[in-house]
Amino acid sequence: MYSARLTSELKQLRDAALTSSYAYTELAHLCNNIGPRLSGSPQAQQAVQYVADEMRRLGLDVQLEKVTVPHWVRGAETGELVKFAGQAPGTTQKIVLTVLGGSVATSADGLSAEVIVVDSFDDLSSLGRGKVAGKIVLFNARFDKQMAAQGFGLDAYGQAVVYRGAGPSEAARLGAVASLVRSVGGADYRLPHTGAFGYAADAPKIPAAAVSAEDADLIAYLTAQGPVRMHLTLTPQTLPDVESYNVIADIKGSEHPEQVIIVSGHLDSWDLGTGAIDDGAGVAVAMQIAQLIKTLGLKPKRTIRVIAWMNEENGLRGGQAYAQDHKEDLANHIAAIESDLGAGHPVGFSAHISAKALEMLRPLASVLQTLGAGIVNRSEHAEGADVSPLDAAGVPTFAPIQDNRTYFNYHHTAADTLDKVVPRELAENAVVMAVLAYTIANLPEALPR
Amino acid sequence: MYSARLTSELKQLRDAALTSSYAYTELAHLCNNIGPRLSGSPQAQQAVQYVADEMRRLGLDVQLEKVTVPHWVRGAETGELVKFAGQAPGTTQKIVLTVLGGSVATSADGLSAEVIVVDSFDDLSSLGRGKVAGKIVLFNARFDKQMAAQGFGLDAYGQAVVYRGAGPSEAARLGAVASLVRSVGGADYRLPHTGAFGYAADAPKIPAAAVSAEDADLIAYLTAQGPVRMHLTLTPQTLPDVESYNVIADIKGSEHPEQVIIVSGHLDSWDLGTGAIDDGAGVAVAMQIAQLIKTLGLKPKRTIRVIAWMNEENGLRGGQAYAQDHKEDLANHIAAIESDLGAGHPVGFSAHISAKALEMLRPLASVLQTLGAGIVNRSEHAEGADVSPLDAAGVPTFAPIQDNRTYFNYHHTAADTLDKVVPRELAENAVVMAVLAYTIANLPEALPR
Repeated sequence: MYSARLTSELKQLRDAALTSSYAYTELAHLCNNIGPRLSGSPQAQQAVQYVADEMRRLGLDVQLEKVTVPHWVRGAETGELVKFAGQAPGTTQKIVLTVLGGSVATSADGLSAEVIVVDSFDDLSSLGRGKVAGKIVLFNARFDKQMAAQGFGLDAYGQAVVYRGAGPSEAARLGAVASLVRSVGGADYRLPHTGAFGYAADAPKIPAAAVSAEDADLIAYLTAQGPVRMHLTLTPQTLPDVESYNVIADIKGSEHPEQVIIVSGHLDSWDLGTGAIDDGAGVAVAMQIAQLIKTLGLKPKRTIRVIAWMNEENGLRGGQAYAQDHKEDLANHIAAIESDLGAGHPVGFSAHISAKALEMLRPLASVLQTLGAGIVNRSEHAEGADVSPLDAAGVPTFAPIQDNRTYFNYHHTAADTLDKVVPRELAENAVVMAVLAYTIANLPEALPR
Repeated sequence: MYSARLTSELKQLRDAALTSSYAYTELAHLCNNIGPRLSGSPQAQQAVQYVADEMRRLGLDVQLEKVTVPHWVRGAETGELVKFAGQAPGTTQKIVLTVLGGSVATSADGLSAEVIVVDSFDDLSSLGRGKVAGKIVLFNARFDKQMAAQGFGLDAYGQAVVYRGAGPSEAARLGAVASLVRSVGGADYRLPHTGAFGYAADAPKIPAAAVSAEDADLIAYLTAQGPVRMHLTLTPQTLPDVESYNVIADIKGSEHPEQVIIVSGHLDSWDLGTGAIDDGAGVAVAMQIAQLIKTLGLKPKRTIRVIAWMNEENGLRGGQAYAQDHKEDLANHIAAIESDLGAGHPVGFSAHISAKALEMLRPLASVLQTLGAGIVNRSEHAEGADVSPLDAAGVPTFAPIQDNRTYFNYHHTAADTLDKVVPRELAENAVVMAVLAYTIANLPEALPR
């Protein structure tokens, strides 16, 4: 049991968060007034300024910590099937696709080549260079929608995303001229899902895009009947790196100001949507922790540090820079909490912590259970990409456990927009983050590792 | 009760349809090999030839009956907000939209104007010319998703579609320079829904487009904060009319060849998707009636006429031409069945018929009930747009009653693709159409009006 005072403060935080529209209002501004916030873009810079100004307005100590980020811009992206069985004379079939982040371009006129479809890397290998060279390869592994609908979206994502991540270089090694991946996500609304990937050092760099699930089906259907030729025009550009920032805003601890509890989300987003669920929601909820503590006049014993991370999506340079820049001080990082799986109803939180630490946090369940968020889960891995470099350095990491059954329908698409967030559910996420952070900040003993 | 022979034949039709993949295979060809089939397009012409050839292959008497159709092509369609509150310097917000069928174009460079948002025609009127002239008007009436989810999709559609249909001229009368409508449909995947509308003779013709639900929300949010300026580029073209065809394929009746029962769907589609649910499915199911009767060696007493209508979407000229060309013969049209609400599980059929005719068809329920399609409903209006001119001339019209709870999520969008049709459900639709048509063709007395 916690002290009566702490318990009372936690309930104040909970009740205030549930009736506040602060996080939703902030999220709306990030999505609607600023818009997509890809690293290096003017919108990402505007968002940095906006969050910093707002945290200062609330009275926090704000630092902008430099992060050098990639600056990749999308350009044109079109695809069409120009030769296939049964085609009406003079016609093509449009293919809905989107370039993967970091891809090189085709020429401005595009390229034309036969498309071949594989379901796996083994499939690709068995074809060999003779059948792959000069072709466009489509990796057609399906995202397991049923698995996602059962709440295991991250597992479904993990299974399929390997083709987005490694496909381009695997195809290039066998001489492919471009690489397509069936969108890694659950939408069936002709919606392509973008995302990052890496070129292997030992493979040619070829253009890479994601086609919608429907278009992958169409290509598979037509290639089963005979040769299919595609014209593909992708004109992204990789511009010089840009100086950007993690926004760091502190409410200094009254007893142990040197001990830090991070609450965070990432401020950058992909460029197709407006980054509501990924991850404006995480930033807005972290901002709300500050707003709640200030509004309620609470005094955490340890420092609560709101961080809006930069460049989670295509580089993770914000998370890496922070861990590097603060490496001498990580022993004082008591906990790092990140929300980066949307804003669905939370059922509790997950933590990469010791068994002893877990026991110290169990009483939280009784405060959170009133909103159905009483699960306290100990996990075996870092919670949150941006905090993973801290986790690797021994800092306990935490994340809310959200209902993510529809998260991967919208993830990395043009449809990641404000309407996908339910205000009440966003507020519930603020409750979990606030109660968790404030507890860790006020335990009599620092949370052990 | 029907004769033992008729009952036995109906069961044969039912059981054969349920185990056949014919309709699905034909639908796949229409969608995937031919593609979108907008009136006047090469794909529409290819589809006419394809269906005619296939019906001839099955041994039907095939006529191509001329229909002069519009030939409208989409062109470029882009929108962006160029001025709004809180905007990052030098940035815009992309607006996802699609031109409405038949719209005139902006200049090639597009137009820029302030956007104003109205929820109704009353709203628009109350603003008056002073506030509307020179502006882009967004009609932001919401499609009632809950109503659609409860099975009343057509009602929800009917409520909202008035703004698509009449909005452009209502806005133009007050001096608007372009008209936008919140997409009439239930998708929340940043997916715009196209569709037809008509320019009033007494109003200037202004460009018209549909924005996605998310983009309508965004514009409404931003206009509530201050002036919002939009740049809009729409370059559709209206080309000279084209000669096209209704495909008419007969299985002549053995006793009353002059008496005709029509089974039909429309062959044209919008150009964004591949017209699977709207209405390749209807055509494929109608084709299957012919295939089943021929395969089973059945001999209907009256003529069963398969029709693939042309130009339902943007003119209804096929349905009108047929009623006109056959006007001397309509007394011999015993029934006209059309499927044009997708391929969801059918629960029975609806008919615009007399009470006496209804009684003659009630025994069908026992044959269809085994697949949960035993509802026999008498309606107060024509069933199916293409058969509505026949209905107006007194011909009884019929349609399967499909589960259309998700139909309007995909209707008139790029996501109307083959995967939206479940093979088993398509087969169930073939059962309903086949059993209904064959019954009417074989009743001892012609169905009364």
